[in-house]
Amino acid sequence: MGCVQSFRELCDRQKNTNVRISLPAVCIVWQTAMIILFGIFIRYNEESDPHWIEYRKEQNISSDIENDFYFRYPSFQDVHVMIFVGFGFLMTFLKRYSFGAVGFNFLIAAFGLQWALLMQGWFHSLDYNDGKIKIGIENMINADFCVAGCLIAFGAVLGKVSAVQLLVMTLFGVTLFAVEEYIILDLIHAKDAGGSMVIHTFGGYYGLSVSWMLYRPNLNQSSRLQGSVYHSDVFAMIGTLFLWMFWPSFNSAITDHGDGQHRAAMNTYLALASTVLTTVAISSLFQKHGKLDMVHIQNSTLAGGVAVGTAAEFMLMPYGSLIVGFICGIISTLGYVYLTPFMEKHLKIQDTCGIHNLHAMPGVIGGIVGAITAAAATTSVYGAEGLINTFDFEGEFKDRVPTVQGGHQAAALCVAICFGVGGGILVGCILRLPIWGDPADDSCFDDEHYWELPDEEETIPPIIQYNSHMRNKDIVESNFSMEQTSR
Amino acid sequence: MGCVQSFRELCDRQKNTNVRISLPAVCIVWQTAMIILFGIFIRYNEESDPHWIEYRKEQNISSDIENDFYFRYPSFQDVHVMIFVGFGFLMTFLKRYSFGAVGFNFLIAAFGLQWALLMQGWFHSLDYNDGKIKIGIENMINADFCVAGCLIAFGAVLGKVSAVQLLVMTLFGVTLFAVEEYIILDLIHAKDAGGSMVIHTFGGYYGLSVSWMLYRPNLNQSSRLQGSVYHSDVFAMIGTLFLWMFWPSFNSAITDHGDGQHRAAMNTYLALASTVLTTVAISSLFQKHGKLDMVHIQNSTLAGGVAVGTAAEFMLMPYGSLIVGFICGIISTLGYVYLTPFMEKHLKIQDTCGIHNLHAMPGVIGGIVGAITAAAATTSVYGAEGLINTFDFEGEFKDRVPTVQGGHQAAALCVAICFGVGGGILVGCILRLPIWGDPADDSCFDDEHYWELPDEEETIPPIIQYNSHMRNKDIVESNFSMEQTSR
Amino acid sequence: MGCVQSFRELCDRQKNTNVRISLPAVCIVWQTAMIILFGIFIRYNEESDPHWIEYRKEQNISSDIENDFYFRYPSFQDVHVMIFVGFGFLMTFLKRYSFGAVGFNFLIAAFGLQWALLMQGWFHSLDYNDGKIKIGIENMINADFCVAGCLIAFGAVLGKVSAVQLLVMTLFGVTLFAVEEYIILDLIHAKDAGGSMVIHTFGGYYGLSVSWMLYRPNLNQSSRLQGSVYHSDVFAMIGTLFLWMFWPSFNSAITDHGDGQHRAAMNTYLALASTVLTTVAISSLFQKHGKLDMVHIQNSTLAGGVAVGTAAEFMLMPYGSLIVGFICGIISTLGYVYLTPFMEKHLKIQDTCGIHNLHAMPGVIGGIVGAITAAAATTSVYGAEGLINTFDFEGEFKDRVPTVQGGHQAAALCVAICFGVGGGILVGCILRLPIWGDPADDSCFDDEHYWELPDEEETIPPIIQYNSHMRNKDIVESNFSMEQTSR
Repeated sequence: MGCVQSFRELCDRQKNTNVRISLPAVCIVWQTAMIILFGIFIRYNEESDPHWIEYRKEQNISSDIENDFYFRYPSFQDVHVMIFVGFGFLMTFLKRYSFGAVGFNFLIAAFGLQWALLMQGWFHSLDYNDGKIKIGIENMINADFCVAGCLIAFGAVLGKVSAVQLLVMTLFGVTLFAVEEYIILDLIHAKDAGGSMVIHTFGGYYGLSVSWMLYRPNLNQSSRLQGSVYHSDVFAMIGTLFLWMFWPSFNSAITDHGDGQHRAAMNTYLALASTVLTTVAISSLFQKHGKLDMVHIQNSTLAGGVAVGTAAEFMLMPYGSLIVGFICGIISTLGYVYLTPFMEKHLKIQDTCGIHNLHAMPGVIGGIVGAITAAAATTSVYGAEGLINTFDFEGEFKDRVPTVQGGHQAAALCVAICFGVGGGILVGCILRLPIWGDPADDSCFDDEHYWELPDEEETIPPIIQYNSHMRNKDIVESNFSMEQTSR
Repeated sequence: MGCVQSFRELCDRQKNTNVRISLPAVCIVWQTAMIILFGIFIRYNEESDPHWIEYRKEQNISSDIENDFYFRYPSFQDVHVMIFVGFGFLMTFLKRYSFGAVGFNFLIAAFGLQWALLMQGWFHSLDYNDGKIKIGIENMINADFCVAGCLIAFGAVLGKVSAVQLLVMTLFGVTLFAVEEYIILDLIHAKDAGGSMVIHTFGGYYGLSVSWMLYRPNLNQSSRLQGSVYHSDVFAMIGTLFLWMFWPSFNSAITDHGDGQHRAAMNTYLALASTVLTTVAISSLFQKHGKLDMVHIQNSTLAGGVAVGTAAEFMLMPYGSLIVGFICGIISTLGYVYLTPFMEKHLKIQDTCGIHNLHAMPGVIGGIVGAITAAAATTSVYGAEGLINTFDFEGEFKDRVPTVQGGHQAAALCVAICFGVGGGILVGCILRLPIWGDPADDSCFDDEHYWELPDEEETIPPIIQYNSHMRNKDIVESNFSMEQTSR
Repeated sequence: MGCVQSFRELCDRQKNTNVRISLPAVCIVWQTAMIILFGIFIRYNEESDPHWIEYRKEQNISSDIENDFYFRYPSFQDVHVMIFVGFGFLMTFLKRYSFGAVGFNFLIAAFGLQWALLMQGWFHSLDYNDGKIKIGIENMINADFCVAGCLIAFGAVLGKVSAVQLLVMTLFGVTLFAVEEYIILDLIHAKDAGGSMVIHTFGGYYGLSVSWMLYRPNLNQSSRLQGSVYHSDVFAMIGTLFLWMFWPSFNSAITDHGDGQHRAAMNTYLALASTVLTTVAISSLFQKHGKLDMVHIQNSTLAGGVAVGTAAEFMLMPYGSLIVGFICGIISTLGYVYLTPFMEKHLKIQDTCGIHNLHAMPGVIGGIVGAITAAAATTSVYGAEGLINTFDFEGEFKDRVPTVQGGHQAAALCVAICFGVGGGILVGCILRLPIWGDPADDSCFDDEHYWELPDEEETIPPIIQYNSHMRNKDIVESNFSMEQTSR
């Protein structure tokens, strides 16, 4: 008890945002470690190695265009944009945390993808002949996916943590992700093309649990900075739109060549379109005069993409995609209206970006939709070969039937939730240590503490016409001195 | 006469921007209708269905890479970016209408593409065996194209209509588009790869006619909000550049595999490059001190892409593309200088974004260029097979010769204009009904009426150094009180 | 001596930024020249010509998908985005030069690519049968690459030159580039897939030399405008991220089909990830309290992509890519901290964007890395065919061995530096003529002189609640008058 007490005290001592030693140290040490580990483990696979030309002849592949690169590179680039511009700009909505949003997002994504290549490589791409991980385009996509999980979690703690904490959170997040993904995709043999469970459910609950552990009772001291300004909301729309537009690529990036990618892209496209309409409807319905709320438009419009992630490559049917999108737009928007304030007040979960509404809940819905769609699969709809192809009923799983697959999908969803919650609590515990340079409660959501900010001089005042030597700052200062004297 | 009189009065009564019932109702009802119609009509086509693997073997297709998805998906994603980021951000230039520009664009595009899949599907992709519409990647591109026509029209009425009006305008716009497209492409058998006629001419005149019907004599009451601010112009450049860069994908997205797509992309690339130089030249020539006008740079630089739309896949030749771009840059910029003010003053057409200069006129030029290029086609230039391929002189059109094709191209242009003007007048009439929640004349171009706006506090003043508890608002307030007392 | 004296005087006379005659004249004349030259010289190549279908059969190409268009178009579009949005927005960081950054970037890129198609075409794509240049997708990528060299140079002189000067600089830059490229790639037969030498080293030193020739001793008169504001830094991050994300496409765009493109993309992806971490480390280490500097994040994070340009398609190995990125992040950031101020003070080189740290130095490193990697190539690593393929040891170069190739790579680097420095001095000399409309020393970094700017009214003040008829301007004005009277 005394131990817990002193841990509490330790955690609650005066905050110091100076990361001049810790941040460079962590970056350099980790990057060095990455170089060593890559040197030991990572090699090109047969499609990115100069022996490809010989491999092609051996395998009787007729043309270079059948290199997996050409099947997946356009999707990879779209996913890459989602990770860096999509997630980065989506979080720029805060009035004074745009640098942190886009900059820290950049940092942790660049770090996370290297660690993900290793972790996922050990589980999925290890060549047992020489003990090397052989990587190609699909590994790059998967690394980006893995990072997405951590960026989702970042959304919950946005503005309340330091870059060092984010790096720690990403290191553990990627590790947990790789294990969870191995259990879900390989052991349980669930399918999760767009990662509703693996990425969104896990990432969502991971972030929420971390945020719960880092609960700040006095966060309202920063409330003046917790809103947006006009242009920061427009910046955030850049993130929203790039996520929205490229989500079909996200959900189809690692599905089967041919009809698999084709169908996954279409289902996602339709689900997202449907979500936009119901988001607008609910947003308008719950505001005075039917005005729209930018928070909903920026976030809830994306929920449909999350929720068709698992089932995107299944025969969800076009109308099924619309229905999923329809429901998610409503639930996600209602989440922003009712659930987020409730969670903050009663559950002590402070969720800056509302990832519960955008990722966690839609991810769970996606898992359920996936389980139902898988369980309902029939040979008449998929064709005999199509069914085997779509669900990989091959090798040790060749006798599995769709209903059993449905059960396994549901089990996978539980695994994702458990890993998210459990991992988040564990990591949150670590992040409460007072060594990470996180800001005090009245300094949250403020770039000031981690970034060299330009002088404020957004507007050059019209007074410049009268006396060009006199500048904005002088005016305000002289006003101030006037006030002082007049008091 | 009395009837017209009372209709006038009805239309001119007090405006009410409350859309709290109408907007949610329209969104939910329409989205529900979409789900039902998709359930009845829309299915995957053979390339996005799991039976693809069997179809492939039947058709003797050697590899999955020959699925149409791989020919068109990169272009589709580029077109998608143009629709949502391109059109959306291009319209953010107004100082207080960025939310409306990008948000309403998002809404109507997401709605329109669903309805377009149905409308275009009935005309083009209906499988007469089972009465179902079979969709694939090409349908998604065509749906985006169809939506583009409506977004162009949105440009003319930007800031002067409500979201509900935009939805109505899109519903009718998509419907008209599909009919017009069917007449032009199927009945007349004109070619229009980049949609100079089908998309731009139609969309342009549709928007202008609607705007003419919705003429507001007292719009100058909103003139304080009709300009841009520095950063809103930079946001608009995001839209401009994404449109400009991806226009080669737009014009080549649904052209023939192989040389067709290749040539269309190159012609568009060249035409657009040329347009930039003449736009700069004319913009500089018509301003004091040779200064450039952002309105021209944002808009007229795109005119070349519109004008090579029809002829992009023909043998326009590289220099031909440059010439088309050259001319359009000049005409479009002159349109902004002379024509837009003239149209507002004398024709009562208020064209917020100047779509007449960016879409309508260049679209007509594109139709004419297409007709001439088609009429001039010869076997020596195209090759016998090339000529048949390029113009689809097959089936019932196998005896058509290039000169006849040229005539039909010209006829198609007339159809596009008629549908645009006629449809616009009809729809404008409907939109004058006083039930749609449009803003009063002094409330145009203002997000205030349809969006929850963040508090104004863009700049945190330097005074914060002296006394961090004193905030911007306090300063201005105390200044204000001082002034009051000192008067 | 008197001649030099009078040239000096000529150059130093009163500046006049009126370009109303010169800018339109240059644009129209050059665009007309382009049309004539394109008419004489440029034709479609066999893959973009309607005879493709016959060519395909002759060459026994099994499918349209093997048209080079499908190998390269997605990369082309990514490169296109880097040129227009990437470079354009990267330079928007200045508080009052965003229009110039993105607008002039647009203008010179659109002009440069036409001239590049001709210049590069004469050297590389001339069909000696008919004296025509035959162009296709690869030419478009190369034209964009060539323009990149000039846009890099633009970075050094950003804010200090007129649009006319930029056009002149681009005309000469493209010409020099094409000659230098011909020497390096054809005569020396060096490999430079991502253009570390050809593009970045050349472009960097070209820009720095021009800037040295245009040295402005009194540039501090514009120092009030030489910084950023909060939102301009966020705009610049758009440029940074699109450059960063699409750099894998840049370095792989014109490499060999198959493993070449695959490997180049992966190496670049890894190098860039590594650079981000070391950039953050060094940036934090050199600031008070460990704060990050946006200048470093915006620029140095990209250095790794530059430095793997030459070796991207070689067997650099994944860990090798990380090492290159690691080193470049450090060197580039240190460059911003120490070298840029040193160069300005002691070498009279004013480098607005710090292109020496982002392009010139990393480009040289890239050239060295390329030379070492090439010299170390062995048959055991590449395979016999792989080695020949990767280094094109064919035709007259079939007997060249890797060590000799390494020496030639180093020679190529020297050529790039010489062309950059020499060309820059020459062109700088021309640009000092007082006929180009460049701004005076106290008018640099200001859009005011070349753009019609919107009225300043970024913020509608909170006072609006009290008295909506009183506007921002009035307040400041009345404050001003009060001060005047109170003095």
